[in-house]
Amino acid sequence: MRPEPCIIAVAITGSVPRKKDNPALPVTTAEQIESTHAAYEAGASLVHVHVRNADETPSSDPEKFAAFQEGIRKHCPDIIVQFSTGGRGRALEARGAMLHLKPDMASLATGSVNFPTIVYENPPDFVRTLATTMRDLGVRPEIEVFDLAMLFNTADLVAEGLILPRPHVQFVMGVKHALPARRDVLEFEVAKLKEVLPGATWTAAGIGRHQFEVARWALEMGGHTRT
Amino acid sequence: MRPEPCIIAVAITGSVPRKKDNPALPVTTAEQIESTHAAYEAGASLVHVHVRNADETPSSDPEKFAAFQEGIRKHCPDIIVQFSTGGRGRALEARGAMLHLKPDMASLATGSVNFPTIVYENPPDFVRTLATTMRDLGVRPEIEVFDLAMLFNTADLVAEGLILPRPHVQFVMGVKHALPARRDVLEFEVAKLKEVLPGATWTAAGIGRHQFEVARWALEMGGHTRT
Ligand SMILES: [Zn+2]
Ligand SMILES: [Zn+2]
Ligand SMILES: [Zn+2]
Ligand SMILES: [Zn+2]
Repeated sequence: MRPEPCIIAVAITGSVPRKKDNPALPVTTAEQIESTHAAYEAGASLVHVHVRNADETPSSDPEKFAAFQEGIRKHCPDIIVQFSTGGRGRALEARGAMLHLKPDMASLATGSVNFPTIVYENPPDFVRTLATTMRDLGVRPEIEVFDLAMLFNTADLVAEGLILPRPHVQFVMGVKHALPARRDVLEFEVAKLKEVLPGATWTAAGIGRHQFEVARWALEMGGHTRT
Repeated sequence: MRPEPCIIAVAITGSVPRKKDNPALPVTTAEQIESTHAAYEAGASLVHVHVRNADETPSSDPEKFAAFQEGIRKHCPDIIVQFSTGGRGRALEARGAMLHLKPDMASLATGSVNFPTIVYENPPDFVRTLATTMRDLGVRPEIEVFDLAMLFNTADLVAEGLILPRPHVQFVMGVKHALPARRDVLEFEVAKLKEVLPGATWTAAGIGRHQFEVARWALEMGGHTRT
């Protein structure tokens, strides 16, 4: 039995790091499954999944997502599996190509914003298509809020019925050119969330050196956390 | 003599409306100059300029900007001329192609965001190039903030020296998928502006039906206004 109400989540690999940066980085499916298994033994209850090509670049290959999910269901029977629909260098059309595998959850960024060197593109029609696909397949979205308008966009999508009420929202902070890791900004986001999406749950994630600071704010402010 | 301290500005045409929507819309250079002249007589002290192709689509043609500027200097000698570097359907490379004409000001969006049907793309390198070009030519930027991260990006660009200190910032509200027209959001933006860019001046612009409401908030909160 794990303690509630906090969901301790693990992001086994983001879309950016490479083995040359961190030799322990899990990249193959077997490595990713074992890394998740270790986190699960340590108490993690959710895994956020990016998969990689052989050259370690981000992949959208549904077969890789399927192999990961199959392994994870064996090793960590009750972990929540969350597929990433984001990630740099993945073609727009391909980013939702694995949703038919029906993971428990999938990430959904509800707008566009600058990232360190590129535009993180989530055009309006693309967001609507992903949201509708998730709704129709019973995949729960984790709304990724990189900038404030994405929060209000989410409320509009809920009002339209494309996202079910009481969504789960993750505020992401500290990605260069998107919202910085600032407690006042997080407090404003959470206050507006409570106003426009009452009943929604939320987490906050700080990127890189901001990870622990943002996790602490989230705990202090009553959100869930992700490690 | 016009009263200070409010700058009354006029945007003679945005990038979207067409003559079929509004037969009085100034589209040709001569029409734009006369429309600006009328606003100038009525007290406008700044003109925000988009130019059009013959088919009324947004244009980036430096010759059109030059013809407008030449006419406007004759008819409205002391009006502030501000060229738009934004606008839908203009190629990224072309959006700053008229800055060598040295208007008094030019608009500069410091990030990317969704617009009603597209991604309004201002990739990081593009923003840096536009900012540097304006600085080097002595063209004062009007920072267009469509979402909150753009405000923090602006502070970073000032810290790097690509934008001169005490910039002028315009908060734009009510464009679908970007920040909505909400007074609490504007109040938060203005509070953060004062914190990260002390000495900056600001205006707020509401799009379409939000125009007068946002202008009233800006007046009440001590900003300048644009009609
Ligand atoms: Zn195992
Ligand atoms: Zn991810
Ligand atoms: Zn005239
Ligand atoms: Zn404009």
